[in-house]
Formats: sequence, C-alpha cells, structure tokens
Amino acid sequence: MTTSTALLIADLVGVAVFAASGASAAVAKRLDLFGVAFVGFVAALGGGIFRGLVIGEMPPLAFADWRYATTAAITAGAIFWLHPQLARLRTTVLVLDAAGLALFTVTGTLKALDAHVPPVGACVVGMLSGIGGGLGRDLLTGEIPVVLRREIYAVAALAGAVVVAVLDRAGQAHSAPLLGAAVLIFGLRMVALRRRWTVPVATLRPPRTHDPGPGQR
Amino acid sequence: MTTSTALLIADLVGVAVFAASGASAAVAKRLDLFGVAFVGFVAALGGGIFRGLVIGEMPPLAFADWRYATTAAITAGAIFWLHPQLARLRTTVLVLDAAGLALFTVTGTLKALDAHVPPVGACVVGMLSGIGGGLGRDLLTGEIPVVLRREIYAVAALAGAVVVAVLDRAGQAHSAPLLGAAVLIFGLRMVALRRRWTVPVATLRPPRTHDPGPGQR
Amino acid sequence: MTTSTALLIADLVGVAVFAASGASAAVAKRLDLFGVAFVGFVAALGGGIFRGLVIGEMPPLAFADWRYATTAAITAGAIFWLHPQLARLRTTVLVLDAAGLALFTVTGTLKALDAHVPPVGACVVGMLSGIGGGLGRDLLTGEIPVVLRREIYAVAALAGAVVVAVLDRAGQAHSAPLLGAAVLIFGLRMVALRRRWTVPVATLRPPRTHDPGPGQR
Repeated sequence: MTTSTALLIADLVGVAVFAASGASAAVAKRLDLFGVAFVGFVAALGGGIFRGLVIGEMPPLAFADWRYATTAAITAGAIFWLHPQLARLRTTVLVLDAAGLALFTVTGTLKALDAHVPPVGACVVGMLSGIGGGLGRDLLTGEIPVVLRREIYAVAALAGAVVVAVLDRAGQAHSAPLLGAAVLIFGLRMVALRRRWTVPVATLRPPRTHDPGPGQR
Repeated sequence: MTTSTALLIADLVGVAVFAASGASAAVAKRLDLFGVAFVGFVAALGGGIFRGLVIGEMPPLAFADWRYATTAAITAGAIFWLHPQLARLRTTVLVLDAAGLALFTVTGTLKALDAHVPPVGACVVGMLSGIGGGLGRDLLTGEIPVVLRREIYAVAALAGAVVVAVLDRAGQAHSAPLLGAAVLIFGLRMVALRRRWTVPVATLRPPRTHDPGPGQR
Repeated sequence: MTTSTALLIADLVGVAVFAASGASAAVAKRLDLFGVAFVGFVAALGGGIFRGLVIGEMPPLAFADWRYATTAAITAGAIFWLHPQLARLRTTVLVLDAAGLALFTVTGTLKALDAHVPPVGACVVGMLSGIGGGLGRDLLTGEIPVVLRREIYAVAALAGAVVVAVLDRAGQAHSAPLLGAAVLIFGLRMVALRRRWTVPVATLRPPRTHDPGPGQR
C-alpha cells in the first residue's frame, strides 16, 4: 500500500469517526436532520479545511475530493437513523472523538511536513488539525470546548505530533510507526478519561484582606 | 451584460441584503454604531471571505475590491440611522437573510465551479458561501445559528447549489436560469418560514422499562 | 535596523502582549495549563493567521517561523506561573490588549499593503489583524467580544490603519511615523477606557432624559 493510499484511508476513517462524534452530539442536542449533518460535517472536515488553508491546499481536500464530504454525510445520516441502537451517546462521542483526534493529528502533521512547514509549526498545525473538528462541534452545540476542559486532550495530540515529526526527521515515517503514534494519542486520551488525569490549574490566590487594593476596600 | 458584470451585481446585492440583516440583528441587540457595522460586515462578507480562501482567491474579493466593504459599510450605516422606520426588525432580518442566502449560494457555487472545484465540493462551497454570513452573524449576536434551527435553510441552499451545478454541467449557466435557481432558494426558504416546514428530528427514545423493543408493536 | 527586522520585533512584541492578555483571561476563568496556553495562542496568533490566509502567506508566519509559537507559549506559561504576582488581572488584560491591538493593526496593515491589497481592503485587513486575537480570546472564554461592547476599540484600530495607509501612500512608512500610528491606537483605546468614551447606540426608543450618563459622580 502506498503512503498516499494509507493517508487517504486514515483520513477517511478520521472523517467517519469525527462525523459520527459530531452527529451523536447533535442528536443528543435534538437537532434536526440537517443540523445533525451540518455538525457532523464541521466535526469531520473542520480541522482538515483549516489545515488545507494553512498549507496552501486550494481547494482543501474536503472540497476537492468528493469522498470526504460523502463519507461525512453518509456517516452522519447513519447516526441519525441508527442512534437509538447506540446505547450511550455521550460515551460514544468521547471514544470516537479520541480516535478522530489520533488519526487527524498524525495525518495533519505529516501533510504539514510534506508541505515544507518547519517542524515546530507542523506540530502545531497537526495538533490543530486534530482538535479543530471537536472545537467546531462543541462551539456549534454549545458545549464547553473539549480543549478547554481540565483533561488531557490537546497535550495528547501535541505529544503524538512531536513523535510524528521525530519519525519524519529520522526517515521512519512509515505506516507502522505512524500507526504507533496514533495509538499513543488514542491511548493517552482514553487512559486520561478513565483515570480522570487532569492538567494543573493555576492557583488563583484570593486578594488578602491586608492587601492595599486600590479602591476595592 | 457579461457574466462577470452580472456576478458582480448579484454579489453586491447579496452583500447589501446580508449587511442589512446583520445590522438589523445588531440594532435589535442594542449594539453601538461600530458593533452594528461589524456584525453587518461579518454577515455580508463572512461567507465570501471563506469561499475566497477555499478557492485560492488571494486576497478575497471582499478585500481586493473596495466596493464590497463600502457597500457593506454604507448599508449597515443606513440601517443604523433608518431602522426606526423599519417596522418589524425580526421579520426584516428573516427576509433579507433569505435573499442573501439565495444570491450568495448561486454566486458561490458558480465561482467554485469556475475555480475548478469538482461538482460535489462546489455545491458544498456554494452552500457554505450562502450560510456562512448568517452563521457568523448569529454567533456574534448570541442567537442559535439559523442553520441549526429546525427549519428549511441549508437544505434550500443545497438544493439551489445542485441546480446551479447541473445547469453548469449542461452549459446553461446563463443569467436567467441562474436567477431561477436563486428564486428557488428564496422561495423554498420563505414558504418554509411561512408554513413552518421543518426537517425531521431524530426520535431519542428514553430507555423505558416497558419498552417492547424494536419491531414489537 | 531594516524594515523587516522592525516588523518582526513589533510582531513578536504583539504576540507576547496578546498571549499575555489571553493567558490572563484564561487564568481568570480557572482554565488548566493547556487551556491557558491555547487561549494565549489564539489571542496571540489568531489575528495573524487570519491575515496570512487572506494575503496568501502559506503557511502563515505563525507556523512558518518557530519564534511566533515559541514566544506565545513561553509568555502564556510565564503568566500561568507568575500571575499571582499580577495584582489585577482584569486591568492587565485591558492594557495588554490595547498594546497588542496597536501593534498588530499597524503591522497587519503594512503587510497587506506590501501584498498589494488595495488601501481600503488593507485597512480592513489591518483592523481585523488587530481585533482578531481578542475576538478569538473572548469567544473561547465566553466573554462578550470586546469589539461588540460599547467602547472605542475597532474604531481606534481603523483610525490607526488609515494613518498607516496614508503614510504608505506618502512614502513615509518608516519606523518612527509607524510607531506614532501605534501610539495613536493605544492612546485612543486607553483614553476611551479611562474616560468611558462610547460609540453611539441606535435609539430604539426615545432616550431617557433623566439618564445620569456613564461615569459621572
């Protein structure tokens, strides 16, 4: 299997799982068929469209290749009709989201490197490719963006993106090691969810009473 | 009249009606003169800027041609000063929004096809050109995005975009048939609003203990 | 000092102050370390990424030059760890935001003019470069976007952008006059904040004659 075929398959699987995550979130919010399709679209293609614009891919693959939009639409439609069989939508969204995060971060980082974006920038572009869809989905459905919650999310994507950049530098950006990077992201995210790992929060000390705060007291 | 002149006029009319819809929504939210101008801008030019970025039009027409920004600014200013004469702002927003949706979807689909975006992608780009401005306006003014409400909106745009793509394929993308496509979108949207047509919502069945299960009725 | 070196320094200072504004806002919202870094990123680089996309800078400098992302990350991290020393976060955000607004508007307008965007469009692109980061920060942290509040904000940026365009047309776009344009924006914004200058609001109803007015004691 060529690299481009492997990338296409990984991309379409990412589109499907993110479309499913967006559609499940939209069904849970009682949106109509087109709302479900639209949120599925944004979740599935938002990160990739952003990446395409940034690396000068005009038009982005989401519009240039009909398989992307079609995969997203069919998946969102399937979720709309089949969701009563899906037992717990919220858990489903979380697992699918983690899988999409892993796949899009790896393919996004690779594509940015292929487009001659320097390594630091390519890691950021890859991370944003991964988190962009979920960010759009959460903004549209009125949820607190997952990337801003106290959970391991963007940091898992960034770790995977760094691994991809290192593999690429070492000339080892083949299917098996890249799959390993994706599994790393997915694993980090799932373990963090299950064990409730969190990122530290700044200690915001309340103003002390003897603090001469101007005009406050 | 050449095709490019017709496209320019249709585009500027779309800019004016969307700027008016955005400005009316901002006036209704009690925003100041610059808030009104800004929301008018985003509503008028947001969809077109997105389309321009996607099809590699750098800079997008909204920045390259001063008539776009000027039309949006003058229209928003006019709404700001004249709005007390506008009897019912909410209805005004809805009608102007439908007109802008129709015009931008048609011109957006055409421009995407001209930029060699394949038909499926061009329909999506056209639909997003149409709904982008209203989406930005609703996000800025804190309304539920119109595209996510249980109404015929994006589906009307998509139907019109498909008609444009078919006309283009048949070599019939002339002013009169394209105007027909715009009227189709506007008509679908207005009839849907008036008759309260809605898109189906997924039946989210709560887990009832006496649920007979699938196919048992 | 060459123009490009001066632009780079002005840009990186803008990145730092906007990253600090975003990080301070995120700390105030009790976000975790990555949330703080992410909001700092968006505030620091959002406006510039938008400008880069619009003027066809692929990839945008924020991704092409590692110093941008690194400056944003280090600044956000510093705010995260040092913020207890920052007495009043809210005032800090406002002052840093005004400085970033001034710097990014000037550099954004210049870059758009350099990329052959016509003057009207270049002023709009420059203004959006200036207000984009703060808009993203406010949307992410759930604040009313500063550009929509009844304050002198976008209008200060626009005034400075017009000065830059006039200077450029007159062949006087050197460091000193450009610094003057930045100081103009910063000064307008700070004076407006201190004196509670506001932009007029459309009169939906007859104005209340017994309104004491803002800030009068």
